[in-house]
Amino acid sequence: MDHAEDRSYRYQTVEHHINDLISSGALTPGDRLPSLRALSSRMKASISTISQAYIRLEHQGTIEARPRSGFFVSSPNKKLPPPAGSPRPVLEPTRVNRNQLIRTVLDAVGDQTLLPFAIISPAKELLPHKALGRIMRRVLKNDNGHSLTYAPCEGNADLRRQICFRSIDAGISVLPRDILITFGAMEGLHIALRALTRPGDNVLVQSPTYFCFLQLLENCGLRAIEVPSHPETGVDPADVALALETFHIRAGILSSNFNNPDGSLTPEPAKKTIVDLFAKCNIPLIEDDVSGELHFGNTRPGTYKQHDRKGDVLYCSSFSKTLAPGYRVGWIIPGKYHPLALELKATTSVCTATPTQMVLAEYLESGQYDRHLRKLRQAIATQMRTMQVALSRYFPPDTRATRPAGGAVLWVELPKKIDAVDYFFRAKNAGIGIAPGSIFSTQDNYNSFIRLSCDGLWNTQMEAGIQTLGRIAGEMTCG
Amino acid sequence: MDHAEDRSYRYQTVEHHINDLISSGALTPGDRLPSLRALSSRMKASISTISQAYIRLEHQGTIEARPRSGFFVSSPNKKLPPPAGSPRPVLEPTRVNRNQLIRTVLDAVGDQTLLPFAIISPAKELLPHKALGRIMRRVLKNDNGHSLTYAPCEGNADLRRQICFRSIDAGISVLPRDILITFGAMEGLHIALRALTRPGDNVLVQSPTYFCFLQLLENCGLRAIEVPSHPETGVDPADVALALETFHIRAGILSSNFNNPDGSLTPEPAKKTIVDLFAKCNIPLIEDDVSGELHFGNTRPGTYKQHDRKGDVLYCSSFSKTLAPGYRVGWIIPGKYHPLALELKATTSVCTATPTQMVLAEYLESGQYDRHLRKLRQAIATQMRTMQVALSRYFPPDTRATRPAGGAVLWVELPKKIDAVDYFFRAKNAGIGIAPGSIFSTQDNYNSFIRLSCDGLWNTQMEAGIQTLGRIAGEMTCG
Repeated sequence: MDHAEDRSYRYQTVEHHINDLISSGALTPGDRLPSLRALSSRMKASISTISQAYIRLEHQGTIEARPRSGFFVSSPNKKLPPPAGSPRPVLEPTRVNRNQLIRTVLDAVGDQTLLPFAIISPAKELLPHKALGRIMRRVLKNDNGHSLTYAPCEGNADLRRQICFRSIDAGISVLPRDILITFGAMEGLHIALRALTRPGDNVLVQSPTYFCFLQLLENCGLRAIEVPSHPETGVDPADVALALETFHIRAGILSSNFNNPDGSLTPEPAKKTIVDLFAKCNIPLIEDDVSGELHFGNTRPGTYKQHDRKGDVLYCSSFSKTLAPGYRVGWIIPGKYHPLALELKATTSVCTATPTQMVLAEYLESGQYDRHLRKLRQAIATQMRTMQVALSRYFPPDTRATRPAGGAVLWVELPKKIDAVDYFFRAKNAGIGIAPGSIFSTQDNYNSFIRLSCDGLWNTQMEAGIQTLGRIAGEMTCG
Repeated sequence: MDHAEDRSYRYQTVEHHINDLISSGALTPGDRLPSLRALSSRMKASISTISQAYIRLEHQGTIEARPRSGFFVSSPNKKLPPPAGSPRPVLEPTRVNRNQLIRTVLDAVGDQTLLPFAIISPAKELLPHKALGRIMRRVLKNDNGHSLTYAPCEGNADLRRQICFRSIDAGISVLPRDILITFGAMEGLHIALRALTRPGDNVLVQSPTYFCFLQLLENCGLRAIEVPSHPETGVDPADVALALETFHIRAGILSSNFNNPDGSLTPEPAKKTIVDLFAKCNIPLIEDDVSGELHFGNTRPGTYKQHDRKGDVLYCSSFSKTLAPGYRVGWIIPGKYHPLALELKATTSVCTATPTQMVLAEYLESGQYDRHLRKLRQAIATQMRTMQVALSRYFPPDTRATRPAGGAVLWVELPKKIDAVDYFFRAKNAGIGIAPGSIFSTQDNYNSFIRLSCDGLWNTQMEAGIQTLGRIAGEMTCG
């Protein structure tokens, strides 16, 4: 028996032992498991062996980690069932008219006194603020005033080179000169839409989609054509084909990975087919990939851009969901629209800020980003599981929730009786921020959905918040 | 005789002495004056007395300071005559079509190898990079990760409070909640135009005007209606009245102070009349005041906004011309369009970056800004005079140039024979960046004008650059 097998055998022993304790009833759902140290001493195994066994048991769903509390025996149904199929959105151009509601919701999002289930922004405790601060201090010490001067309109050359290297993981081979640095992905999206559309044009979006995209369409006088997004299977190329055949569509906006809000990941072959469909019709596709790095599995998912042969995909991403929301640094790879995008950047904001670009370039070059991402993904995945368990514990029985393989949000289907906007106001009165489903579509298919963010820092207040949300949902179901 | 009279008498003595030396021919144009120290010892007066005398003589035009070289006897015609009246722009809506040319010029602006007469951006040596760096380091040390998180969409509260205090000098009384922080004045302008216009609309601008405004109009599908801007007298309300009567105009964009490129300052009574004219027609006015703080005289000029009674003036400014171009921090006071502007900000870039706002808020609060501005204004004013003298020395005799009372640019009228775009390319080949007049209008009234920036750091290369520019102009005049 070689060393590896020996170790494998050891954690199986621990695993069997815990399973025996559970099946014998010595441990029941909700019980706390012995600490790693205690079990290590009791079973005469190393802490890392016990830890590996716990991680396996957790993956099997037998036990669950609760941040800062330890491991607990899972309830038999620790996760809610996935959402039932939503009604298909009506396939027709719709004047976007959600701004009033979105404005009300955004007011609450900005409200720092509310529990932060409404905003997607990693808790600052999950971000490498010390490392970034050190780099900023060093940069400023040696820059001789350079950080005060304008950056090139297309962005800091070192940062573009680093992004170019990282793009390889996303299947994208580009040169630094193909990349344009923007104030977050949102400026990229905005520039892309301005480059491609005129008021009155139709834009294909998935349904549900990020409410800021709908706001942007409304502000640009554009109409939305919604194609279904399935939490488990993403966007179906057949739906895209039908929409492209039926309507004169000027551009598409699709979120490739862990779509906000439904967490859907469009499978790789579907991505390719969809890019081909757009290319065949000579219609440009704006890709949003801000969550692509937040995969819980080992492999980074692919992108639409990687299948782009003709420069028709305008790829947008940022560091806002993974590293430094407040730096407002993102990028666009605008393909053949690069000259126009550069010009629009110049007349939108002249150039992106200098010091933050310098810091991110150095941080990426230092090689710390991947290590940080691994920790961040693990933290968010754990918190999402904890949230799922809390939902199953506190919410009415016919509540449903997504089980995304990445990203930072859960899309929760409440009992049909509940109107999510009404629910939003009741939650707000209870000091809790949530995003009601109705803002993620121009149509009324998500009126009983809510979106909950899982990248805040889980603590007892968050747990109590979910308990309160569950109670409110219960009252609205019975009432 | 009291102490003040005594001192006044002393510098008059020095003044008379220098004037005597010049009129006797002991000092001739171009001669260097004795150093402050040497004259102080020779005339048994304090250095500050000699310095006051030199400053008076400089103001009178008798002598001139050259940065890092000392004082020199002025040439009798040290400044060129002001531009002859330009032809009036044709009063009709014009589709903006300057982007191709502007793009070519902007490529050169971004070229760091060229002498920087094309770009308006204070040399980093003129900016307080040490003070800002110290504040950034302190902020990051104590912020516990806060600088990585999103700022409120409307901007950092402390910064808005500081801007609110400063606005009083500009005659603007607002509350912090009336101010919206943007990525430079350009984002403010862009948001204002998006809030007010739809493609095809007419927008009133002054002629000449900042070429980025024309680019923005072109990118938004808008038409320009140009009213004359006179280097000496600014915008004439009668011209505005005529334009507003003649055309359906959706909005105006006017630069209140030291208009880029002609340096014109619209007098205060004219500002009031113009605001009243816009208000009477219920047409909103976008005010650009990025150079308002760069007055060479003692008093900050007023603004259009100070005469705004109905919230119809959207005031835009920034710290880019005075403090930190690379921070990309500006602001808009959008009056009654505030809710819409806030929403457009959210869908353009979500919010302005956090750390740079924190640093500027602390810098303003520290009270260092006014001291810095005094030094900066003096430096730019001196450099502008040096540039005017160099132009008179090296350029063909029928060259003309503005004599602005603030801002950072000279608007130079070359002999009619010279086409400024041709001239631009010849200068570029000689390693010198300039901005050709044709990009500052949709019409062809400024084809023999160029704009020269005076906020780079004057040195022998700059002097040699102006000499080369003069030689090229000479060749084109003779050729």
